[in-house]
Amino acid sequence: MAENNAVLIGRKPVMNYVLACITLFHAGAKEVNVKARGKAICRAIDVVEVVRRRFLPDVKVTKIGIGTDKFTPQDETDGQTNVSTIEITIAR
Amino acid sequence: MAENNAVLIGRKPVMNYVLACITLFHAGAKEVNVKARGKAICRAIDVVEVVRRRFLPDVKVTKIGIGTDKFTPQDETDGQTNVSTIEITIAR
Repeated sequence: MAENNAVLIGRKPVMNYVLACITLFHAGAKEVNVKARGKAICRAIDVVEVVRRRFLPDVKVTKIGIGTDKFTPQDETDGQTNVSTIEITIAR
Repeated sequence: MAENNAVLIGRKPVMNYVLACITLFHAGAKEVNVKARGKAICRAIDVVEVVRRRFLPDVKVTKIGIGTDKFTPQDETDGQTNVSTIEITIAR
């Protein structure tokens, strides 16, 4: 798969994103990128753990990267703030 | 350093843990393990990002591992639940 199969984690229940990952793998993806930032980071880890422990035991975590994004809150006027990000690559 | 310099992330403010990491490095540690589980995971990433971006730019993330712990809630009687964990190793 040349294209980038990304699942961006937001505020929905963990199972929604688990299903998105499984759907990508069933559609033939060899690799899925799970991305999240801020408070969604713990949900991203939950998603990866549920996918590989409950549904697809042949899936392995191949890469985890963390970083920082500049972020401008809509409801504040004092400029930028930082938000942590995570990107987890899982592959089968 | 042969011993394991671990900083376990809980519910305190991020800066408390940042200070703990910096203190370990200043005491001569070559490597610090930042560990967290559940909702503290996003705080663990914040700690690592603040340490390496604001205070110790020579610190690098050398390893990130995720996993699942069995966990028995005190206020529930229906047995075990799962909690995601993260362990981030930073070194200078």
